[in-house]
Formats: sequence, structure tokens, C-alpha cells
Amino acid sequence: MSDYRYPYKDVLFALNHVANIGRLNDLVDEPLSQDLLEAILTESAKLSEQIIAPLNWSGDQQGAELREGEVYEAEGFKEAFRSYVEGGWASLSGDEVYGGQGLPSTLATAVNEGIQSANLAFSLCPLLSNGAIEALEKYGSQLLKDTYLEKLVSGEWTGTMNLTEPNAGSDLAAIRTKATPHEDHFLIQGQKIFITWGDHQMSENIVHLVLARLPDAPEGVKGISLFVVPKFLVDENGALGRRNDVSVASLEHKMGIHASPTCVMAFGETSGAVGYLVGEPNQGLKAMFAMMNNARQGVGLQGLAIAERAYQQALEYAQERVQGYDSSRKNRVAIVAHPDVKRMLMTMKSLIDASRLLIYVAAVENDVSKLAVGDQAKTAAELTALYTPVVKGWITEIAQEVTSLAVQVHGGMGFIEETGVAQHARDARILPIYEGTNGIQAIDLIGRKLLGDNASAMATLINQIVADVHASQSKYSEAVLSEVALFKQTTTVCLESMKENSTLGTYNAYPYMMQFGYVLGAWLMLKAQAETALEGESASNEERLRCASIDFYCQQILPRARLFGSMIENGTEDVDVSIFKQ
Amino acid sequence: MSDYRYPYKDVLFALNHVANIGRLNDLVDEPLSQDLLEAILTESAKLSEQIIAPLNWSGDQQGAELREGEVYEAEGFKEAFRSYVEGGWASLSGDEVYGGQGLPSTLATAVNEGIQSANLAFSLCPLLSNGAIEALEKYGSQLLKDTYLEKLVSGEWTGTMNLTEPNAGSDLAAIRTKATPHEDHFLIQGQKIFITWGDHQMSENIVHLVLARLPDAPEGVKGISLFVVPKFLVDENGALGRRNDVSVASLEHKMGIHASPTCVMAFGETSGAVGYLVGEPNQGLKAMFAMMNNARQGVGLQGLAIAERAYQQALEYAQERVQGYDSSRKNRVAIVAHPDVKRMLMTMKSLIDASRLLIYVAAVENDVSKLAVGDQAKTAAELTALYTPVVKGWITEIAQEVTSLAVQVHGGMGFIEETGVAQHARDARILPIYEGTNGIQAIDLIGRKLLGDNASAMATLINQIVADVHASQSKYSEAVLSEVALFKQTTTVCLESMKENSTLGTYNAYPYMMQFGYVLGAWLMLKAQAETALEGESASNEERLRCASIDFYCQQILPRARLFGSMIENGTEDVDVSIFKQ
Repeated sequence: MSDYRYPYKDVLFALNHVANIGRLNDLVDEPLSQDLLEAILTESAKLSEQIIAPLNWSGDQQGAELREGEVYEAEGFKEAFRSYVEGGWASLSGDEVYGGQGLPSTLATAVNEGIQSANLAFSLCPLLSNGAIEALEKYGSQLLKDTYLEKLVSGEWTGTMNLTEPNAGSDLAAIRTKATPHEDHFLIQGQKIFITWGDHQMSENIVHLVLARLPDAPEGVKGISLFVVPKFLVDENGALGRRNDVSVASLEHKMGIHASPTCVMAFGETSGAVGYLVGEPNQGLKAMFAMMNNARQGVGLQGLAIAERAYQQALEYAQERVQGYDSSRKNRVAIVAHPDVKRMLMTMKSLIDASRLLIYVAAVENDVSKLAVGDQAKTAAELTALYTPVVKGWITEIAQEVTSLAVQVHGGMGFIEETGVAQHARDARILPIYEGTNGIQAIDLIGRKLLGDNASAMATLINQIVADVHASQSKYSEAVLSEVALFKQTTTVCLESMKENSTLGTYNAYPYMMQFGYVLGAWLMLKAQAETALEGESASNEERLRCASIDFYCQQILPRARLFGSMIENGTEDVDVSIFKQ
Repeated sequence: MSDYRYPYKDVLFALNHVANIGRLNDLVDEPLSQDLLEAILTESAKLSEQIIAPLNWSGDQQGAELREGEVYEAEGFKEAFRSYVEGGWASLSGDEVYGGQGLPSTLATAVNEGIQSANLAFSLCPLLSNGAIEALEKYGSQLLKDTYLEKLVSGEWTGTMNLTEPNAGSDLAAIRTKATPHEDHFLIQGQKIFITWGDHQMSENIVHLVLARLPDAPEGVKGISLFVVPKFLVDENGALGRRNDVSVASLEHKMGIHASPTCVMAFGETSGAVGYLVGEPNQGLKAMFAMMNNARQGVGLQGLAIAERAYQQALEYAQERVQGYDSSRKNRVAIVAHPDVKRMLMTMKSLIDASRLLIYVAAVENDVSKLAVGDQAKTAAELTALYTPVVKGWITEIAQEVTSLAVQVHGGMGFIEETGVAQHARDARILPIYEGTNGIQAIDLIGRKLLGDNASAMATLINQIVADVHASQSKYSEAVLSEVALFKQTTTVCLESMKENSTLGTYNAYPYMMQFGYVLGAWLMLKAQAETALEGESASNEERLRCASIDFYCQQILPRARLFGSMIENGTEDVDVSIFKQ
């Protein structure tokens, strides 16, 4: 098994030189110094590399176990989670009112990159807690905040998101879980599936956020409310009381992330589970999106993280594995020297570099949208809305390609589970599916985001991209501008087709999202290029690799933008579903 | 678990209307009637659908087991293999001299498509036997043929290919297994890894074909010889004698094809394994390629087969799973009605259709190369040489995409192992790796095949494609011709770069192979279009689906050819491996 090494320099470069994390310092009372930033990344890297990463493979092999109604996580996870909490990593970006450290969430993103690379299954537990925290912060009553937030922020308790039911996946309108008013609370009854870290022994309590319907609720998504349902009831002093009527019916056997227990949850099988309304009745979807947006960018980050881990392992193997000869045909070489292997490694590296730039640009924009006021906040919120689906959709598709290439670099050894690289491909396969499938992300982009404001925010972004590319004076400027121009055209095509027929228009959604991703990648790679002045022989390998990765992106990856553009230009005939009946 | 249904009409259409299986009838003494062809496919479909397919999932879950030196396959496999042998399916294309039915191997391909779709792990056992048969037929002495071929052809015995060693994978020059002359045979000593179906209980004997070095052999690939090493020695009357000194050291734990035992084989750990030379000393690589070419087209077929299986399962799910509303926003619909899902299904279907056409065109060409004489045989052999790497490389890449899309169509259920669709993606992941990685295929295409004859066979093929596309008078002719013209240009670029520097030239190998695949697909889809005259309302769903699939290919898939062409046109900077050292 290869070790994981936190890509410290790449992250710092993205934060300082492309995402411009300094923007946040103008918006906060206590600016974040470069020293503190570096110290935080260095310390968190130790946790990821030394404590969490070594449990990745064993966790995959062992998985989680359901015994007498309780879920037991894989060995070592409880202790690692304790280190995570005691190190203060859970509370990094939490509200200071509830004991958090109040740092920008971009910083948490940088820390989480390491934790997710180290162990995707482990990282899902804090990710979902953060979604719960965000929903409670935004929509919870003062009493709910006071009761739950401090423990959630510290990491003593964890949170979950309970959305999906057997008949309600992408279509949340079909949710059937019931919430009946009872005394000062509600009684929740129903079954939820695919509940990540729905139970475990790593924290004292688990705070389930559950979508359900009130008795008089309207049909569809307008009748869904959000509830807090704790595993153990909490008394007015914050002490844990009796077990709530929430249980784990079963655990799923999955293709990957074996160490992350995916639970079928039964609410209210006996007396009814005690729940508390979060926000207004029938406004659950809005609160759910508060959780979701956080989680969606988080899943994009997972895509980057697992791609980075897979790349590191493939590179290490390629540097060690001797096979074949160099061009003199005399000296045996490590396979890293073969052009076809270099092509695979550079594909991985440049896709990772572009993804990382986008991740941190989107993270900073998201922070600005929360910290700024007025027009600045509005613009940042609009950009965040555009970035979220592409961060989730594009980067998780990239994760499929990169983890698959990592297997391929290993040849036959890649298919052997003990090598460990197949695990990354298996783990990564969930990413295009959960927190809204990539098809749903694409429809969100083309519908809610593009059609929603008549492509006005997108037009602003495109103008910014054009200006930046001009300014970059890169040798690739012309090539990139030509792709941006095509993207502008397809934006119009997509917008018009959505106006004409918002069902058929979604044929374009997926290629449009992918084209957007590759154009964003090119924009950010040119920004990176402008920030990387090679000083001849004094250039470090790291700088030379970054430049090679930018070259590779512009020469070998960028043409993909045009591919997806062509798919939209060519159009797709609508298919009558009856032809599938043979 | 979804049932498998042999795609009878699609296979017949490909054979009769595009691959023109009728060509073979002019070359054989007893023409194959359409009735016999259909009867064979119908009967073999029963075996695949009813006997072999039901063991796919249970085989995955159970895997194979090593107990006291013997490998035991998953439950039911032995009985299924007996049905396969007793039904005469093993001997379909075998030489009549050795009890085979002497049918063209194209027919075996059509039968094998069903068996491989039904159960990829199972199908590997006969596939490797066929490789062994072909090597013995071509290079074995009369004595070896008389001793082994009859039982191999009938399926009573099975064969394996023992090439890879821990330090010799893609680079066979590094093989270290030794063969020492001893009495009338050789003693083989060494370890081989990744030996598919290296041991099992389904046949009385296992005939290992093993690459090894004679004591005086030159270094490198010029010093490799091929040996037959049976599990049980065979006396002059054909009776089984003592156990040879061949054993299974261990079984691998793999990402997929769990039911196919992948063995570490130990030859000659005690007395030395008795082996017999096949062909001339130091000419093992040539004989190995005889096995390999057969196997490489066979692996391409596996790609098609598993893609078809995954597509069927995804389509069935999409037709059953109700989620969301139709465009009226009033009626709930099965997800097959959503454009994004239709896009995924049509992507799968059109990639499968194009792959299937290529498979059968290549299979017929391969048969012509063996059955014809003179120029016809020569041309067919040249075409077969061009087709083999792209059949293996392109179609197994398509299998990754299609099986992944099948998971995606299932949403969260796709990630749950019990659904069964994840197995197809796990199983498919070996295909770009074994029998020569796809990188090796691409280098074979651009080196041995393109550079080998100065792109003369490719030029002939391109001319044929241009003529056919013109003749098709399709509405897509112009679009396809423009892609063919680009492909012709990149062919020149690739040839020139290979001449200039045959190491650096291989940077282009992979994109060139992929571009070739998509161009071939377009050519064959237009041929298919010309053969599918829609008769208004009398058109069957099958014909309408085929037309929709051709439309989709030309509009949505064909632009990929240009993508790979652009990668070659743009060029790739060579990367100094030192930059990877951080």
C-alpha cells in the first residue's frame, strides 16, 4: 500500500495564487496570516497522513458491522475520529458562538482535502455533520441551536442527512415519511435508505436531519418539512436521555467506501421517533438545499481528493516498476519513462490540477458570498450557484477517469485488491451518484441556474474569463478564447432550448456541464501559468511539473470542451421510449 | 438480478447485413445455410440464458477456492461446463481432423458473445483453451497434436496461457522461467502469475502452454520458447498418468471476475515439470502471438458482451423505476422517459451497436484470412492485423464507459452489490489490462501495423471506407467523410512521428487507436443504416431503435473521433521524468 502525502505546495499555490484566499482577509475582523494558514495545513497533513490514511485499506477490507441493532465501524476509526475531534479539526469553520474557531470554510476545505484523500469512507462522517450544522445554523430555532450546535461543532456529536426513501431518490416529491404533531414535538414514522454513517460508535450522539411530511402537507416538494431526530434524546440541560425510536434496519453491501456504514434507517417503528421541526413547516426543501450545497461542493472535493490519492499511488508504482527499455533499447527503465505511461500520468495530473484550482476558487467565492455584503455578496452567491453543480458533476467525472487510469498504470497488479489502487476506483464510483446524481447537477445548472436568471450570471462569468485570458498573454490564449467563444454559443443554444421546452432542453444538460468544466479548467490553468514564472535552471521540479501539466491541459485536455460543444451543436433527436420495447 | 437475453436480431443483422458472413460460403466446401446459422444461435442462446447466466452473480459472490493444492470453482460451474461441452459448443470451430465441427470461427464468436455476456468469468476458461488449440494447431508437432488436440477441441481438457512472471508483464523479454532438456522432453522451472483458470475441477486435464528459456537461449524476446506442460502426464495411448510437477501457489483476490481463478503457478518445485517444445526453439513469441491474436479479438468480444449485459440490465431498471414526472408535470413516469436517462441509454446502445458491427466484421475478415488463398487471403490478413488492436483496445474502453453508465442509470441502487450491475463494472475493469494492455495495443497498431508496412494496409482500408461512405448516401455521409479525412491526416502525422522517433511517436498511439475506433464505428453504422430501410409504420421497434442508435452515433459519438485527432494534431511535449520527483 502506498503512503499518502498531503500535496501541500499544490494546495497553497491554488489558495494563494489562483483562488486568492487573501480576498477573505478584507472581509473578516481577524485576517488569516500566511503563517497560520501554513501551520494549519501542516498540522492537518500529519493527521491525514499518519492517523487516517493508514486505516483506508483495512477499513475497506473490514467494513462496518451491524450487531444487535448497533453499527460498529472498522477498527481504529473510533480512535482516529477522537484525534480528529481533539485536534479541533471538526470545529475549524464552526460558528464561534457555538465553540467553533470561526475560520473561513475555505480553510476547512483545504484540511478536508487531506482527510478525504486519506480515507474517503472516514471523511463522510464529518462531511455530513457539516451539512447538519449548516442547516441548523440557517434554519434552526434558538432552542435547537442551543441544544445541538455546540456538540455538533466540536465533533462530540455527529449529524446525518435523511432524504432518500425506496421510492424517493432523485424525486424527493415522492417522500412518504410522516411527522405527526405530539405535545411539544413531532412523531416521525417512516423508512429512509442510503443513510451514510446513520449509526456508529464514534460519537456520543447522532443528530439525524430528516425530511418528512406533516399531516396537512400539500402534495409534492411543497409539502416537505425538515426535522431533527436525535439518536438519544437531549434534556434541557443538554444531558443525554433515553434512546429515541430510531434504529438501523440493515447495512448495505456496496461496491466501495466499505468502511462508511450505509444504513437503512427505521424511524418510529414502536412509539414514533421524537423529532423537532427545523424552520417553517413545508419549507424543508429549502433547508435541505442548505445542507446539499455544502455537501455538493464537498463531494466535488472528494472527487479531487480520491483522484490525488490514486495519482500518487500510480506515480509511485510507475517510478518503481521496471519494465521494457529506453529509446536506446539497451537500458531497462521504470515504466514512468514510457510515453504511454507518461501520457496517463500527465492526464491524471493536469485533470487534478485543474480540478484543484476550481475547488479552491469555488470555496473562496462561497466564503465571500457569506462574509461580504451588498453587491459583492450577491455576485459571489451567483457565482457559487454556478460553480456548485460543475464542482460536483465535472470533478466527480474526472475522478472516474483518474482512478481508472491509476488502475491502468498498474497493469495486472491494478486489478489485484491487495495493491489497493482498485479500492480508489471502487470508492470513487459513488461520487457521480450521491448528493444528486451528475445528471441532476447538470439539470440544476441548465435549469435553475441558467434558465433561472436568463443566463445573466453566466454571461458575467464568461466576460470575466475572456478578460482574464486576454490578460494572461499565454501562448494558449487564442486556443482558450476560441473554446470560450464556443461555450458562449452553446450557452445560448442551451438557454433557447430550455425556453422552448424545458424537458427536451435537458438533453443538453450533461454535455453543457462538462463543457463548462473544461472551459473553467482552461481559464484557471492560464491563471496558474501567469503565476508560475519559470526561472530557467532555478525552477523547482514542482514548478516544472505544474508548467508541463498546464501545457498538457491546453494541448490534450482542452479539446474536450469542443467535443461537448459539438454534441450540443449537433443536437440530439428525442427518442420515443416505445422503441426500447423489443 | 436481471435476466440476460441473447440479442439474436442484433447479432444476425451484424452478421448478414454488415459483416457479410456470406463471403465465407464461397470459401468453404459446405456452405453454412441461414437456417443452420439461426438454429445454432438459438440453441446456444438457451445455454447462455438458462444455464450460464444464472451463475454469474453467485459466482461473483462465492469466487473460487484453493484447498490442499486444488482449485475448486464456484458452485454450478462444473455442471454448466459439462453442458457446454456435451452440447458440442467447445468444438464448434475446431478442426474436423480432431473431432471439431469445422465451422467458421465467426460462428464461434457469435456463440461466445452470448456465453461472455452470460458470465464473463466462466467464459474465460474456453477462451484460453482456444488460444492453446490455435497455438498447437499452428506450431505443434504431429505427436503433440495427436496427443492433445482431440481432447482440447472437445472440451474434455482445457488449456491455459502462461506468459506473465512477476518481473515480466508487458515486457516478455524479461521472462526467466527455465526449460532444461531431459530425455525426450524438457524440465520446466519457474513461477508464472496471473494464470487464468490455471487450475479447476471442470476438466480431467489442463494443458498449460508455457513460455520459458532454453539454457543456451539468447537474451530478450529472441530467446523465448513455448512448451506444453500438462497437469497430468499423458501416456502414448492418451491415458492420463501421474501428476506433473505443476502446482498452484495461491489465488489472487481481484476487483472482479471473482469466479475465474487467477493463479500463481509454480512449475518444477520438486522434480521439474515435464514439458514439450512447441515449434522451434526460441520461436516462442511467434507461437505466443498465435494464441494472443485469437485472445485479443476475444477480449474485444468480452468488452462488447459485458457492455450488452450491462445495457440490458440498465434498460430494464430504467423501464421499471418510477421517479419524477413527464413534461406535463402531472404523470409520474419511469426514468427511461427522462432525456438525461435516454441520453445515457442511447450512448450505451450506439456504442454497443458500433462495437458489435466491428466485432463481426473483424471476425469474418479473420476467417477469410484463413480460408482464402492468394491476394484475398493476404488482404484479409492485413485487415485482421489492423483490426485486432482496435477491437481489443477500443471496445474494451467502451466497455468501461457502458458498464459505468449502467451503474449510473441505477442511481444509488447501482452502488449496492446485490443489484448486480456493479459486478459488470468490476468485471469489465480487467479488459483494458489483460492480453496486452490497451497502451500495448495502441503501440502495436502504430508500430508493428502502421510503421510496419508504411501505412499501406491502412491506406487501402481508408480508401474502402471513403468509397463505402460515398455509396451509403447517408445524411451523415459528409460529416463522416470529414472525420475520415482528418483520420487520414493524423495517420500521416503518426507515421511520420514514428519514423522520426519510434519512442516519442508512441505518445500518439492511444489517441490514434481511439480515433481509429470511432471512425470505424461511423463507417459501419452508415453501412448498417443503408441496410435498414424504415418502412413507415411497419418498421419494427428493433429497426427504429437501430436507426435512433445510428443517429445518436453520428450526432453525439462521432465528434469523439475529432477529439482524439486534435490531441494528435496539437502534439504532446515530451515530459522529462525527473519532474515527477518532488
